[in-house]
Amino acid sequence: MAIICKLEPTLMNYIEHVYKCNRHDLMAFRPFILENIKLGNIRHEFVNKLLAFKDVFKEMGTAITLSKNLKSFSTRNHAISEVVNELILQGHLPKLRNEFYPVTTSFYKPPFFQLDRAAVPYFGVRAFGVHLNGFTKNSNGSLDLWIARRAKDRLFCPGMLDNIVGGGQPIGLGIMENLIKECTEEASITKDLSTTAIPVGAISYMMETEAGLRLDTLFCFDLKLSDDFVPKNRDGEISNFYRWPIQRVAQIVNDGFEFKFNCNLVLIDFLIRHGFITPDHPHYTKLIKGLRF
Amino acid sequence: MAIICKLEPTLMNYIEHVYKCNRHDLMAFRPFILENIKLGNIRHEFVNKLLAFKDVFKEMGTAITLSKNLKSFSTRNHAISEVVNELILQGHLPKLRNEFYPVTTSFYKPPFFQLDRAAVPYFGVRAFGVHLNGFTKNSNGSLDLWIARRAKDRLFCPGMLDNIVGGGQPIGLGIMENLIKECTEEASITKDLSTTAIPVGAISYMMETEAGLRLDTLFCFDLKLSDDFVPKNRDGEISNFYRWPIQRVAQIVNDGFEFKFNCNLVLIDFLIRHGFITPDHPHYTKLIKGLRF
Repeated sequence: MAIICKLEPTLMNYIEHVYKCNRHDLMAFRPFILENIKLGNIRHEFVNKLLAFKDVFKEMGTAITLSKNLKSFSTRNHAISEVVNELILQGHLPKLRNEFYPVTTSFYKPPFFQLDRAAVPYFGVRAFGVHLNGFTKNSNGSLDLWIARRAKDRLFCPGMLDNIVGGGQPIGLGIMENLIKECTEEASITKDLSTTAIPVGAISYMMETEAGLRLDTLFCFDLKLSDDFVPKNRDGEISNFYRWPIQRVAQIVNDGFEFKFNCNLVLIDFLIRHGFITPDHPHYTKLIKGLRF
Repeated sequence: MAIICKLEPTLMNYIEHVYKCNRHDLMAFRPFILENIKLGNIRHEFVNKLLAFKDVFKEMGTAITLSKNLKSFSTRNHAISEVVNELILQGHLPKLRNEFYPVTTSFYKPPFFQLDRAAVPYFGVRAFGVHLNGFTKNSNGSLDLWIARRAKDRLFCPGMLDNIVGGGQPIGLGIMENLIKECTEEASITKDLSTTAIPVGAISYMMETEAGLRLDTLFCFDLKLSDDFVPKNRDGEISNFYRWPIQRVAQIVNDGFEFKFNCNLVLIDFLIRHGFITPDHPHYTKLIKGLRF
Protein backbone atom coordinates (compact mmCIF):
# COMPACT_ATOMS: atom_id res chain seq x y z
CA MET A 1 0.00 0.00 0.00
CA ALA A 2 2.81 2.38 0.85
CA ILE A 3 4.20 1.99 -2.66
CA ILE A 4 0.83 2.73 -4.25
CA CYS A 5 0.41 5.81 -2.06
CA LYS A 6 3.82 6.97 -3.21
CA LEU A 7 3.21 6.12 -6.85
CA GLU A 8 0.06 8.11 -7.40
CA PRO A 9 1.34 11.59 -6.53
CA THR A 10 4.60 10.72 -8.26
CA LEU A 11 2.79 10.09 -11.51
CA MET A 12 0.80 13.27 -11.02
CA ASN A 13 3.51 15.78 -10.54
CA TYR A 14 5.09 16.09 -13.97
CA ILE A 15 1.71 17.26 -15.22
CA GLU A 16 1.29 19.60 -12.24
CA HIS A 17 4.18 21.66 -13.64
CA VAL A 18 2.33 22.03 -16.94
CA TYR A 19 -0.82 23.07 -15.07
CA LYS A 20 1.10 25.50 -12.85
CA CYS A 21 2.77 27.21 -15.82
CA ASN A 22 -0.52 27.52 -17.69
CA ARG A 23 -2.88 28.66 -14.94
CA HIS A 24 -4.58 31.90 -15.97
CA ASP A 25 -7.96 33.57 -16.11
CA LEU A 26 -8.23 35.89 -19.10
CA MET A 27 -11.39 37.43 -17.59
CA ALA A 28 -9.06 39.36 -15.30
CA PHE A 29 -7.42 40.97 -18.34
CA ARG A 30 -8.23 43.28 -21.24
CA PRO A 31 -6.74 42.63 -24.68
CA PHE A 32 -3.89 44.91 -25.71
CA ILE A 33 -4.27 45.56 -29.44
CA LEU A 34 -2.14 47.45 -31.95
CA GLU A 35 -2.72 47.78 -35.71
CA ASN A 36 -5.65 45.36 -35.27
CA ILE A 37 -3.32 42.70 -33.89
CA LYS A 38 -3.62 41.36 -30.36
CA LEU A 39 -0.23 41.76 -28.72
CA GLY A 40 -0.99 41.02 -25.09
CA ASN A 41 -3.33 41.00 -22.11
CA ILE A 42 -3.35 43.66 -19.39
CA ARG A 43 -4.94 43.26 -15.98
CA HIS A 44 -7.93 45.59 -15.44
CA GLU A 45 -6.26 47.55 -12.62
CA PHE A 46 -3.13 48.16 -14.71
CA VAL A 47 -5.26 49.20 -17.69
CA ASN A 48 -6.66 51.99 -15.50
CA LYS A 49 -3.15 53.14 -14.59
CA LEU A 50 -2.20 53.22 -18.29
CA LEU A 51 -5.34 55.07 -19.40
CA ALA A 52 -4.33 57.96 -17.12
CA PHE A 53 -1.71 58.68 -19.81
CA LYS A 54 -4.20 59.99 -22.35
CA ASP A 55 -1.63 60.87 -25.02
CA VAL A 56 -0.26 57.33 -25.09
CA PHE A 57 -3.03 54.81 -24.28
CA LYS A 58 -6.65 54.70 -25.51
CA GLU A 59 -9.61 52.43 -25.05
CA MET A 60 -10.85 50.67 -28.17
CA GLY A 61 -14.08 48.85 -27.32
CA THR A 62 -13.19 46.32 -24.65
CA ALA A 63 -9.51 46.52 -25.59
CA ILE A 64 -6.70 48.96 -24.90
CA THR A 65 -4.44 50.31 -27.62
CA LEU A 66 -1.83 52.99 -28.31
CA SER A 67 -2.71 56.49 -29.45
CA LYS A 68 -2.88 56.79 -33.24
CA ASN A 69 -0.22 59.51 -33.09
CA LEU A 70 2.34 56.88 -32.10
CA LYS A 71 3.05 55.34 -35.47
CA SER A 72 6.73 54.43 -35.51
CA PHE A 73 8.92 52.06 -33.50
CA SER A 74 10.90 54.98 -32.03
CA THR A 75 7.97 57.26 -31.12
CA ARG A 76 6.23 54.32 -29.42
CA ASN A 77 9.41 53.41 -27.53
CA HIS A 78 9.86 56.98 -26.37
CA ALA A 79 6.25 57.47 -25.22
CA ILE A 80 5.99 54.08 -23.49
CA SER A 81 9.35 54.48 -21.80
CA GLU A 82 8.08 57.75 -20.24
CA VAL A 83 4.92 56.02 -19.01
CA VAL A 84 6.94 53.12 -17.58
CA ASN A 85 9.27 55.49 -15.75
CA GLU A 86 6.36 57.44 -14.29
CA LEU A 87 4.61 54.22 -13.15
CA ILE A 88 7.84 53.10 -11.46
CA LEU A 89 7.93 56.41 -9.57
CA GLN A 90 4.29 55.88 -8.58
CA GLY A 91 5.15 52.40 -7.31
CA HIS A 92 3.01 50.53 -9.85
CA LEU A 93 5.94 48.89 -11.63
CA PRO A 94 9.19 47.40 -10.30
CA LYS A 95 12.51 49.05 -11.13
CA LEU A 96 13.87 48.80 -14.66
CA ARG A 97 15.92 45.76 -15.67
CA ASN A 98 17.61 47.86 -18.39
CA GLU A 99 17.13 45.03 -20.84
CA PHE A 100 14.70 45.58 -23.70
CA TYR A 101 12.41 42.91 -25.09
CA PRO A 102 10.80 43.10 -28.54
CA VAL A 103 6.99 43.40 -28.50
CA THR A 104 5.68 41.19 -31.30
CA THR A 105 3.33 38.31 -32.08
CA SER A 106 6.12 36.08 -33.37
CA PHE A 107 9.86 35.98 -32.87
CA TYR A 108 10.13 36.12 -36.65
CA LYS A 109 8.19 39.34 -37.18
CA PRO A 110 9.51 42.90 -36.71
CA PRO A 111 8.66 44.27 -33.26
CA PHE A 112 5.99 46.97 -32.85
CA PHE A 113 8.01 48.57 -30.05
CA GLN A 114 10.39 47.57 -27.27
CA LEU A 115 9.65 47.27 -23.57
CA ASP A 116 11.87 47.04 -20.53
CA ARG A 117 11.92 43.43 -19.31
CA ALA A 118 10.44 44.51 -15.96
CA ALA A 119 7.25 45.76 -17.64
CA VAL A 120 6.74 42.82 -20.00
CA PRO A 121 4.41 40.69 -17.81
CA TYR A 122 2.31 43.78 -16.98
CA PHE A 123 1.50 44.07 -20.67
CA GLY A 124 1.16 40.29 -21.06
CA VAL A 125 3.08 40.39 -24.31
CA ARG A 126 5.12 37.51 -25.72
CA ALA A 127 8.62 37.00 -24.37
CA PHE A 128 11.36 34.67 -25.52
CA GLY A 129 14.32 33.02 -23.85
CA VAL A 130 17.06 30.40 -24.22
CA HIS A 131 17.59 27.45 -21.86
CA LEU A 132 20.38 24.89 -21.98
CA ASN A 133 20.50 21.28 -20.81
CA GLY A 134 24.21 20.57 -20.11
CA PHE A 135 24.88 16.85 -19.74
CA THR A 136 27.68 14.30 -19.66
CA LYS A 137 27.48 10.73 -20.91
CA ASN A 138 29.37 8.41 -18.60
CA SER A 139 31.42 5.44 -19.78
CA ASN A 140 28.76 3.05 -18.45
CA GLY A 141 26.14 4.76 -20.63
CA SER A 142 24.45 6.67 -17.79
CA LEU A 143 23.69 10.36 -18.15
CA ASP A 144 24.43 13.19 -15.70
CA LEU A 145 22.84 16.61 -15.93
CA TRP A 146 24.46 19.82 -14.68
CA ILE A 147 22.04 21.76 -12.49
CA ALA A 148 22.41 25.31 -11.14
CA ARG A 149 21.17 26.78 -7.89
CA ARG A 150 20.07 30.43 -8.20
CA ALA A 151 21.78 32.91 -5.91
CA LYS A 152 19.82 33.93 -2.81
CA ASP A 153 19.77 37.60 -3.85
CA ARG A 154 17.92 36.97 -7.12
CA LEU A 155 14.71 38.93 -7.69
CA PHE A 156 12.90 35.85 -9.00
CA CYS A 157 12.98 32.40 -7.43
CA PRO A 158 16.05 32.98 -5.17
CA GLY A 159 17.77 29.80 -4.05
CA MET A 160 15.79 27.59 -6.43
CA LEU A 161 17.23 25.02 -8.81
CA ASP A 162 17.71 26.05 -12.44
CA ASN A 163 19.04 24.82 -15.78
CA ILE A 164 22.83 25.18 -16.12
CA VAL A 165 22.20 28.20 -18.42
CA GLY A 166 19.04 30.20 -19.09
CA GLY A 167 18.23 33.74 -20.01
CA GLY A 168 15.74 36.12 -21.57
CA GLN A 169 16.01 37.06 -25.22
CA PRO A 170 16.73 40.81 -25.52
CA ILE A 171 15.98 42.81 -28.65
CA GLY A 172 18.65 42.93 -31.34
CA LEU A 173 20.45 39.73 -30.39
CA GLY A 174 20.22 36.48 -32.36
CA ILE A 175 19.16 33.35 -30.47
CA MET A 176 22.55 31.68 -30.85
CA GLU A 177 24.37 34.94 -29.98
CA ASN A 178 22.26 35.16 -26.83
CA LEU A 179 22.97 31.53 -25.92
CA ILE A 180 26.72 32.10 -26.33
CA LYS A 181 26.51 35.24 -24.14
CA GLU A 182 24.50 33.51 -21.42
CA CYS A 183 26.80 30.45 -21.52
CA THR A 184 29.80 32.69 -20.88
CA GLU A 185 28.17 34.75 -18.11
CA GLU A 186 26.37 31.99 -16.26
CA ALA A 187 28.64 28.96 -16.56
CA SER A 188 31.96 30.02 -18.18
CA ILE A 189 31.19 27.85 -21.18
CA THR A 190 33.50 29.00 -23.99
CA LYS A 191 32.14 30.13 -27.34
CA ASP A 192 33.84 27.14 -29.00
CA LEU A 193 31.91 24.83 -26.72
CA SER A 194 28.56 26.63 -26.63
CA THR A 195 28.36 26.73 -30.44
CA THR A 196 28.26 22.92 -30.34
CA ALA A 197 24.95 23.09 -28.44
CA ILE A 198 22.14 21.51 -30.45
CA PRO A 199 18.82 23.37 -30.75
CA VAL A 200 16.22 20.75 -29.90
CA GLY A 201 12.91 22.62 -29.91
CA ALA A 202 11.01 25.03 -27.72
CA ILE A 203 8.51 24.99 -24.88
CA SER A 204 5.89 27.65 -24.21
CA TYR A 205 3.34 28.54 -21.55
CA MET A 206 0.85 31.21 -20.48
CA MET A 207 1.02 31.86 -16.75
CA GLU A 208 -0.78 34.39 -14.59
CA THR A 209 1.51 35.97 -12.02
CA GLU A 210 1.23 38.82 -9.56
CA ALA A 211 2.64 41.13 -12.24
CA GLY A 212 0.24 40.03 -14.93
CA LEU A 213 0.54 37.41 -17.63
CA ARG A 214 3.63 35.63 -18.88
CA LEU A 215 3.39 34.27 -22.42
CA ASP A 216 6.85 32.80 -22.78
CA THR A 217 8.59 30.71 -25.41
CA LEU A 218 11.90 29.14 -24.39
CA PHE A 219 14.22 27.89 -27.11
CA CYS A 220 15.85 24.72 -25.73
CA PHE A 221 19.37 23.46 -26.36
CA ASP A 222 21.23 20.26 -25.45
CA LEU A 223 25.00 20.49 -24.88
CA LYS A 224 27.17 17.43 -24.37
CA LEU A 225 29.95 18.28 -21.93
CA SER A 226 33.20 16.42 -21.36
CA ASP A 227 33.71 14.45 -18.18
CA ASP A 228 36.18 17.02 -16.78
CA PHE A 229 34.08 20.11 -17.50
CA VAL A 230 32.98 22.07 -14.43
CA PRO A 231 30.80 25.19 -14.85
CA LYS A 232 31.77 28.42 -13.06
CA ASN A 233 29.36 31.31 -12.63
CA ARG A 234 30.60 34.81 -13.50
CA ASP A 235 27.60 37.14 -13.18
CA GLY A 236 26.52 36.30 -9.64
CA GLU A 237 23.22 34.72 -10.70
CA ILE A 238 24.21 31.19 -9.61
CA SER A 239 25.47 30.13 -6.18
CA ASN A 240 26.22 26.45 -6.91
CA PHE A 241 26.38 23.89 -9.67
CA TYR A 242 25.63 20.20 -9.18
CA ARG A 243 26.31 17.24 -11.46
CA TRP A 244 23.47 14.82 -10.82
CA PRO A 245 22.37 11.54 -12.44
CA ILE A 246 19.37 12.21 -14.70
CA GLN A 247 17.26 9.89 -12.51
CA ARG A 248 17.85 12.17 -9.53
CA VAL A 249 16.86 15.24 -11.55
CA ALA A 250 13.75 13.43 -12.84
CA GLN A 251 12.78 12.54 -9.26
CA ILE A 252 13.16 16.14 -8.07
CA VAL A 253 11.05 17.45 -10.95
CA ASN A 254 8.46 14.74 -10.40
CA ASP A 255 8.24 15.09 -6.65
CA GLY A 256 7.79 18.81 -6.22
CA PHE A 257 8.71 22.37 -6.91
CA GLU A 258 12.43 22.77 -6.16
CA PHE A 259 13.17 24.02 -9.68
CA LYS A 260 12.23 27.50 -10.92
CA PHE A 261 8.78 27.01 -12.45
CA ASN A 262 9.67 27.07 -16.15
CA CYS A 263 12.82 24.92 -15.80
CA ASN A 264 10.52 22.00 -14.97
CA LEU A 265 9.03 22.22 -18.48
CA VAL A 266 12.49 22.37 -20.09
CA LEU A 267 13.48 19.28 -18.07
CA ILE A 268 10.27 17.35 -18.81
CA ASP A 269 10.92 18.03 -22.50
CA PHE A 270 14.48 16.70 -22.06
CA LEU A 271 13.22 13.61 -20.21
CA ILE A 272 10.72 12.89 -23.01
CA ARG A 273 13.19 13.47 -25.87
CA HIS A 274 15.79 11.21 -24.25
CA GLY A 275 13.36 8.43 -23.38
CA PHE A 276 13.37 8.81 -19.58
CA ILE A 277 9.63 9.54 -19.58
CA THR A 278 8.17 6.80 -21.79
CA PRO A 279 4.85 6.28 -23.64
CA ASP A 280 3.82 4.07 -20.68
CA HIS A 281 3.48 7.19 -18.54
CA PRO A 282 -0.27 7.87 -18.21
CA HIS A 283 0.22 11.58 -18.99
CA TYR A 284 2.65 11.09 -21.89
CA THR A 285 0.54 12.63 -24.67
CA LYS A 286 -0.88 15.24 -22.29
CA LEU A 287 2.63 16.29 -21.25
CA ILE A 288 3.84 16.53 -24.85
CA LYS A 289 0.92 18.72 -25.84
CA GLY A 290 1.00 20.64 -22.56
CA LEU A 291 4.59 21.80 -23.10
CA ARG A 292 3.42 24.04 -25.97
CA PHE A 293 0.77 26.65 -25.34
CA MET B 1 17.62 36.54 -57.47
CA ALA B 2 17.43 32.90 -58.44
CA ILE B 3 18.52 31.93 -54.96
CA ILE B 4 15.81 34.04 -53.35
CA CYS B 5 13.18 32.51 -55.64
CA LYS B 6 14.38 29.07 -54.57
CA LEU B 7 14.58 29.99 -50.90
CA GLU B 8 11.03 31.17 -50.41
CA PRO B 9 9.12 27.99 -51.35
CA THR B 10 11.83 25.97 -49.61
CA LEU B 11 11.16 27.73 -46.34
CA MET B 12 7.42 27.35 -46.84
CA ASN B 13 7.10 23.65 -47.34
CA TYR B 14 7.85 22.20 -43.92
CA ILE B 15 4.85 24.11 -42.64
CA GLU B 16 2.73 22.99 -45.60
CA HIS B 17 2.92 19.44 -44.22
CA VAL B 18 1.51 20.64 -40.91
CA TYR B 19 -1.28 22.45 -42.75
CA LYS B 20 -1.99 19.45 -44.98
CA CYS B 21 -2.27 17.06 -42.02
CA ASN B 22 -4.55 19.42 -40.11
CA ARG B 23 -6.94 20.57 -42.84
CA HIS B 24 -10.52 19.85 -41.79
CA ASP B 25 -13.95 21.45 -41.61
CA LEU B 26 -15.89 20.19 -38.61
CA MET B 27 -19.08 21.71 -40.08
CA ALA B 28 -19.16 18.70 -42.39
CA PHE B 29 -19.38 16.39 -39.37
CA ARG B 30 -21.65 15.57 -36.46
CA PRO B 31 -20.20 14.79 -33.03
CA PHE B 32 -20.19 11.13 -32.02
CA ILE B 33 -20.91 11.00 -28.30
CA LEU B 34 -21.04 8.14 -25.80
CA GLU B 35 -21.62 8.37 -22.03
CA ASN B 36 -21.55 12.16 -22.44
CA ILE B 37 -18.04 12.02 -23.85
CA LYS B 38 -17.20 13.12 -27.38
CA LEU B 39 -15.41 10.22 -29.05
CA GLY B 40 -15.33 11.31 -32.66
CA ASN B 41 -16.81 13.16 -35.62
CA ILE B 42 -18.91 11.53 -38.33
CA ARG B 43 -19.64 13.04 -41.76
CA HIS B 44 -23.33 13.91 -42.25
CA GLU B 45 -23.84 11.38 -45.08
CA PHE B 46 -22.34 8.56 -43.02
CA VAL B 47 -24.47 9.56 -40.02
CA ASN B 48 -27.54 8.93 -42.19
CA LYS B 49 -26.24 5.48 -43.10
CA LEU B 50 -25.68 4.65 -39.43
CA LEU B 51 -29.09 5.94 -38.28
CA ALA B 52 -30.73 3.37 -40.55
CA PHE B 53 -29.63 0.84 -37.90
CA LYS B 54 -32.20 1.96 -35.33
CA ASP B 55 -31.25 -0.61 -32.69
CA VAL B 56 -27.63 0.54 -32.65
CA PHE B 57 -27.40 4.27 -33.43
CA LYS B 58 -29.56 7.16 -32.17
CA GLU B 59 -29.65 10.90 -32.60
CA MET B 60 -29.02 12.94 -29.47
CA GLY B 61 -29.63 16.60 -30.30
CA THR B 62 -27.10 17.50 -33.00
CA ALA B 63 -24.95 14.50 -32.09
CA ILE B 64 -25.12 10.80 -32.81
CA THR B 65 -24.72 8.17 -30.08
CA LEU B 66 -25.20 4.46 -29.41
CA SER B 67 -28.47 2.95 -28.24
CA LYS B 68 -28.77 2.87 -24.45
CA ASN B 69 -29.23 -0.91 -24.61
CA LEU B 70 -25.59 -1.26 -25.65
CA LYS B 71 -23.91 -0.85 -22.29
CA SER B 72 -20.90 -3.16 -22.28
CA PHE B 73 -17.70 -3.38 -24.31
CA SER B 74 -18.75 -6.73 -25.80
CA THR B 75 -22.37 -5.87 -26.67
CA ARG B 76 -21.18 -2.68 -28.36
CA ASN B 77 -18.50 -4.57 -30.29
CA HIS B 78 -21.00 -7.15 -31.45
CA ALA B 79 -23.65 -4.64 -32.57
CA ILE B 80 -21.19 -2.30 -34.30
CA SER B 81 -19.42 -5.17 -36.01
CA GLU B 82 -22.78 -6.22 -37.56
CA VAL B 83 -23.40 -2.66 -38.76
CA VAL B 84 -19.90 -2.40 -40.21
CA ASN B 85 -20.31 -5.71 -42.06
CA GLU B 86 -23.66 -4.65 -43.49
CA LEU B 87 -22.25 -1.27 -44.62
CA ILE B 88 -19.37 -3.07 -46.34
CA LEU B 89 -21.92 -5.19 -48.24
CA GLN B 90 -23.79 -2.01 -49.18
CA GLY B 91 -20.55 -0.51 -50.48
CA HIS B 92 -20.41 2.32 -47.92
CA LEU B 93 -17.28 1.05 -46.17
CA PRO B 94 -14.10 -0.53 -47.55
CA LYS B 95 -13.30 -4.17 -46.73
CA LEU B 96 -12.21 -5.09 -43.22
CA ARG B 97 -8.56 -4.81 -42.23
CA ASN B 98 -9.10 -7.45 -39.52
CA GLU B 99 -7.17 -5.31 -37.08
CA PHE B 100 -9.09 -3.77 -34.20
CA TYR B 101 -8.44 -0.31 -32.80
CA PRO B 102 -9.56 0.80 -29.32
CA VAL B 103 -12.18 3.58 -29.32
CA THR B 104 -11.25 5.97 -26.52
CA THR B 105 -10.46 9.60 -25.75
CA SER B 106 -6.97 8.82 -24.47
CA PHE B 107 -4.55 5.97 -25.00
CA TYR B 108 -4.45 5.67 -21.22
CA LYS B 109 -8.17 5.15 -20.66
CA PRO B 110 -10.12 1.91 -21.13
CA PRO B 111 -11.77 1.71 -24.56
CA PHE B 112 -15.55 2.10 -24.96
CA PHE B 113 -15.55 -0.47 -27.76
CA GLN B 114 -13.32 -1.68 -30.58
CA LEU B 115 -13.57 -0.89 -34.26
CA ASP B 116 -12.03 -2.47 -37.33
CA ARG B 117 -9.21 -0.23 -38.56
CA ALA B 118 -10.99 0.24 -41.90
CA ALA B 119 -13.94 1.96 -40.19
CA VAL B 120 -11.94 4.19 -37.83
CA PRO B 121 -11.76 7.34 -40.00
CA TYR B 122 -15.49 7.05 -40.82
CA PHE B 123 -16.20 7.48 -37.10
CA GLY B 124 -13.47 10.11 -36.72
CA VAL B 125 -12.30 8.53 -33.48
CA ARG B 126 -8.77 8.74 -32.10
CA ALA B 127 -6.19 6.33 -33.49
CA PHE B 128 -2.64 5.65 -32.37
CA GLY B 129 0.48 4.37 -34.07
CA VAL B 130 4.23 3.87 -33.73
CA HIS B 131 6.85 5.32 -36.11
CA LEU B 132 10.59 4.72 -36.02
CA ASN B 133 13.47 6.89 -37.20
CA GLY B 134 16.34 4.46 -37.94
CA PHE B 135 19.66 6.24 -38.34
CA THR B 136 23.40 5.66 -38.44
CA LYS B 137 26.07 8.04 -37.23
CA ASN B 138 29.05 8.01 -39.55
CA SER B 139 32.66 8.27 -38.40
CA ASN B 140 32.85 11.84 -39.72
CA GLY B 141 29.90 12.82 -37.52
CA SER B 142 27.33 12.95 -40.32
CA LEU B 143 23.98 11.24 -39.94
CA ASP B 144 22.22 8.90 -42.39
CA LEU B 145 18.54 8.00 -42.13
CA TRP B 146 17.04 4.75 -43.38
CA ILE B 147 13.98 5.42 -45.54
CA ALA B 148 11.44 2.94 -46.88
CA ARG B 149 9.46 2.99 -50.12
CA ARG B 150 5.95 1.58 -49.80
CA ALA B 151 5.06 -1.30 -52.09
CA LYS B 152 3.02 -0.39 -55.18
CA ASP B 153 0.13 -2.65 -54.12
CA ARG B 154 -0.50 -0.83 -50.83
CA LEU B 155 -4.04 0.46 -50.23
CA PHE B 156 -2.75 3.78 -48.89
CA CYS B 157 -0.03 5.87 -50.49
CA PRO B 158 1.41 3.14 -52.77
CA GLY B 159 4.98 3.78 -53.91
CA MET B 160 5.47 6.70 -51.54
CA LEU B 161 8.40 7.16 -49.17
CA ASP B 162 7.93 6.14 -45.54
CA ASN B 163 9.75 5.85 -42.22
CA ILE B 164 11.84 2.66 -41.91
CA VAL B 165 9.12 1.26 -39.59
CA GLY B 166 5.59 2.48 -38.88
CA GLY B 167 2.31 0.90 -37.95
CA GLY B 168 -1.07 1.34 -36.35
CA GLN B 169 -1.62 0.53 -32.70
CA PRO B 170 -4.10 -2.37 -32.38
CA ILE B 171 -6.11 -3.05 -29.27
CA GLY B 172 -4.50 -5.21 -26.58
CA LEU B 173 -0.88 -4.62 -27.57
CA GLY B 174 1.53 -2.42 -25.60
CA ILE B 175 3.29 0.36 -27.49
CA MET B 176 6.72 -1.25 -27.15
CA GLU B 177 5.29 -4.70 -28.03
CA ASN B 178 3.80 -3.18 -31.16
CA LEU B 179 7.05 -1.47 -32.09
CA ILE B 180 8.96 -4.74 -31.70
CA LYS B 181 6.35 -6.54 -33.87
CA GLU B 182 6.44 -3.87 -36.59
CA CYS B 183 10.26 -3.75 -36.52
CA THR B 184 10.37 -7.50 -37.18
CA GLU B 185 7.72 -7.50 -39.93
CA GLU B 186 8.73 -4.36 -41.77
CA ALA B 187 12.52 -4.24 -41.50
CA SER B 188 13.78 -7.50 -39.90
CA ILE B 189 15.02 -5.55 -36.91
CA THR B 190 15.59 -8.09 -34.11
CA LYS B 191 13.89 -7.74 -30.75
CA ASP B 192 17.31 -7.21 -29.11
CA LEU B 193 17.89 -4.25 -31.39
CA SER B 194 14.37 -2.76 -31.44
CA THR B 195 14.21 -2.69 -27.63
CA THR B 196 17.13 -0.23 -27.74
CA ALA B 197 14.90 2.26 -29.62
CA ILE B 198 14.40 5.44 -27.59
CA PRO B 199 10.88 6.84 -27.26
CA VAL B 200 11.29 10.52 -28.09
CA GLY B 201 7.78 11.94 -28.04
CA ALA B 202 4.69 11.93 -30.21
CA ILE B 203 3.12 13.92 -33.03
CA SER B 204 -0.60 14.31 -33.65
CA TYR B 205 -2.91 15.75 -36.28
CA MET B 206 -6.56 16.04 -37.33
CA MET B 207 -6.99 15.52 -41.05
CA GLU B 208 -10.10 15.34 -43.18
CA THR B 209 -9.93 12.59 -45.79
CA GLU B 210 -12.35 11.04 -48.24
CA ALA B 211 -13.26 8.49 -45.56
CA GLY B 212 -13.88 11.02 -42.84
CA LEU B 213 -11.62 12.41 -40.15
CA ARG B 214 -8.28 11.11 -38.94
CA LEU B 215 -7.35 12.13 -35.39
CA ASP B 216 -4.03 10.36 -35.08
CA THR B 217 -1.29 10.28 -32.47
CA LEU B 218 1.99 8.69 -33.53
CA PHE B 219 4.45 7.63 -30.82
CA CYS B 220 7.92 8.35 -32.24
CA PHE B 221 11.12 6.39 -31.63
CA ASP B 222 14.76 6.92 -32.58
CA LEU B 223 16.92 3.86 -33.19
CA LYS B 224 20.67 4.10 -33.74
CA LEU B 225 21.72 1.39 -36.19
CA SER B 226 25.21 0.01 -36.78
CA ASP B 227 27.03 0.86 -40.00
CA ASP B 228 26.56 -2.65 -41.40
CA PHE B 229 22.84 -2.95 -40.63
CA VAL B 230 20.61 -3.32 -43.69
CA PRO B 231 16.81 -3.56 -43.24
CA LYS B 232 14.89 -6.31 -45.04
CA ASN B 233 11.12 -6.25 -45.43
CA ARG B 234 9.14 -9.41 -44.56
CA ASP B 235 5.46 -8.53 -44.86
CA GLY B 236 5.41 -7.13 -48.39
CA GLU B 237 4.60 -3.58 -47.31
CA ILE B 238 7.96 -2.13 -48.42
CA SER B 239 9.55 -2.44 -51.87
CA ASN B 240 12.89 -0.74 -51.15
CA PHE B 241 15.01 0.72 -48.40
CA TYR B 242 17.43 3.62 -48.88
CA ARG B 243 20.17 4.93 -46.62
CA TRP B 244 20.30 8.66 -47.26
CA PRO B 245 22.18 11.56 -45.64
CA ILE B 246 19.81 13.47 -43.34
CA GLN B 247 20.28 16.58 -45.52
CA ARG B 248 18.84 14.71 -48.51
CA VAL B 249 15.85 13.55 -46.47
CA ALA B 250 15.33 17.11 -45.16
CA GLN B 251 15.37 18.45 -48.71
CA ILE B 252 12.80 15.89 -49.91
CA VAL B 253 10.48 16.71 -47.00
CA ASN B 254 10.97 20.42 -47.53
CA ASP B 255 10.53 20.42 -51.29
CA GLY B 256 7.35 18.44 -51.71
CA PHE B 257 5.15 15.50 -51.00
CA GLU B 258 7.14 12.34 -51.79
CA PHE B 259 6.67 10.96 -48.27
CA LYS B 260 3.37 9.52 -47.01
CA PHE B 261 1.61 12.51 -45.46
CA ASN B 262 2.15 11.75 -41.75
CA CYS B 263 5.79 10.64 -42.14
CA ASN B 264 6.63 14.25 -42.95
CA LEU B 265 5.56 15.27 -39.43
CA VAL B 266 7.63 12.47 -37.86
CA LEU B 267 10.63 13.62 -39.89
CA ILE B 268 10.14 17.33 -39.14
CA ASP B 269 10.05 16.39 -35.44
CA PHE B 270 13.32 14.44 -35.94
CA LEU B 271 14.92 17.36 -37.79
CA ILE B 272 13.95 19.75 -34.97
CA ARG B 273 15.06 17.46 -32.12
CA HIS B 274 18.43 16.84 -33.78
CA GLY B 275 19.10 20.48 -34.63
CA PHE B 276 18.75 20.24 -38.43
CA ILE B 277 15.86 22.71 -38.39
CA THR B 278 17.11 25.56 -36.18
CA PRO B 279 15.48 28.45 -34.31
CA ASP B 280 16.52 30.66 -37.24
CA HIS B 281 13.85 28.99 -39.37
CA PRO B 282 10.98 31.50 -39.69
CA HIS B 283 8.40 28.81 -38.89
CA TYR B 284 10.31 27.18 -36.02
CA THR B 285 7.84 27.85 -33.21
CA LYS B 286 4.87 27.35 -35.55
CA LEU B 287 6.24 23.95 -36.63
CA ILE B 288 6.83 22.83 -33.04
CA LYS B 289 3.31 23.75 -32.02
CA GLY B 290 1.83 22.51 -35.29
CA LEU B 291 3.16 18.98 -34.77
CA ARG B 292 0.70 18.48 -31.89
CA PHE B 293 -3.00 18.89 -32.47
